[in-house]
Amino acid sequence: MPSEPCPAIKFYFDFISPFGYFASLRIDELAARYEREVEWTSMLVGVSVLKVMKIPPIVELPLKGAYVIRDAARYAREHRVPFERVSPTPVSRPLEAGRLFAWAKEQDADRAKLVAGAIFHSYFAARDDIAEMAVLRRCAEHAGFDWADYQAAHEQGAPAQLLSRNVEESLAQGVFGSPFFIVDGEPFFGVEKLPVVEHWVASGGW
Amino acid sequence: MPSEPCPAIKFYFDFISPFGYFASLRIDELAARYEREVEWTSMLVGVSVLKVMKIPPIVELPLKGAYVIRDAARYAREHRVPFERVSPTPVSRPLEAGRLFAWAKEQDADRAKLVAGAIFHSYFAARDDIAEMAVLRRCAEHAGFDWADYQAAHEQGAPAQLLSRNVEESLAQGVFGSPFFIVDGEPFFGVEKLPVVEHWVASGGW
Repeated sequence: MPSEPCPAIKFYFDFISPFGYFASLRIDELAARYEREVEWTSMLVGVSVLKVMKIPPIVELPLKGAYVIRDAARYAREHRVPFERVSPTPVSRPLEAGRLFAWAKEQDADRAKLVAGAIFHSYFAARDDIAEMAVLRRCAEHAGFDWADYQAAHEQGAPAQLLSRNVEESLAQGVFGSPFFIVDGEPFFGVEKLPVVEHWVASGGW
Repeated sequence: MPSEPCPAIKFYFDFISPFGYFASLRIDELAARYEREVEWTSMLVGVSVLKVMKIPPIVELPLKGAYVIRDAARYAREHRVPFERVSPTPVSRPLEAGRLFAWAKEQDADRAKLVAGAIFHSYFAARDDIAEMAVLRRCAEHAGFDWADYQAAHEQGAPAQLLSRNVEESLAQGVFGSPFFIVDGEPFFGVEKLPVVEHWVASGGW
């Protein structure tokens, strides 16, 4: 009898989070080296930060806001990641992007990652407004999804329900920021935790 | 004519910050590999968080509070660091510890690091209350400082003034948490940034 495969690494992200974008470019490759799958889930940092933690958005905090903006640009240079959104404003509302991804994941989780990649690239490298349906349509069609199918689902409210469920589930798991990883029940926050995630996966934990 | 030595790496910490403790065990060794000095400065996270950012202490935040407590214990296990303060309560007031360190640094910056190490160890490994003067006296004497000298200075208010100045200076530098590093003007927050600090020092930046 073959042994059970290890459960997927859970990867939570918000489409307007630069560090979520950076992590999206590394997590699958990291996991594959240990023959692990990754389940991607879009969430909304605004909900966890504003409604649950009841603090302002990080970029609006004195001192820390300026730091994270600088840190994101520095990370992009260090890792040679296309990053044209050095100023965090204007911010797109990530709601429609999260809905599209949540719907696409239900159809085909692997192809949904291509949608996510296209959305992240559109936002952070091409400086598109990912609240615009025309931008999201291009991202969906890039990954082979049928926009008419999505529109029909959208009219019925299914994508909105899926995203809401994902956000609730992420909060129930303790997810409070982007990126966030859960490996065999163990939570890790932030792109700088990827080496620790790798250590955990490689060693089986400690 | 000999070339100018590189400026010291600035290391800011709060004595009740577990991640500041963890960083204190690594930063000098890291810097020495690149022939860099480290200047240690004690600050007060409570001032930056409560008064400047105007948010609650991190450990009191929903979701994130539980995460950082877990993360600290996990870091200690991973790096085999003595760490007996898995629960963050009771919290010692770090004011007197910061004052002692600020005064000791004025006397002898190298020996002051021994005081800091003793304070961190007392708090995190021995679970002592570092608000108690008897504990601080032991830490000062461990590093060869004369307690009567310190008491005399303390009565004149000099240590309090030094710490206040350090806190103000740290805020002026954008320091908002512990540990915080400034390398050639470049700010880095958090112990997980140490590999990035090392990359920066080794490469000269990017």
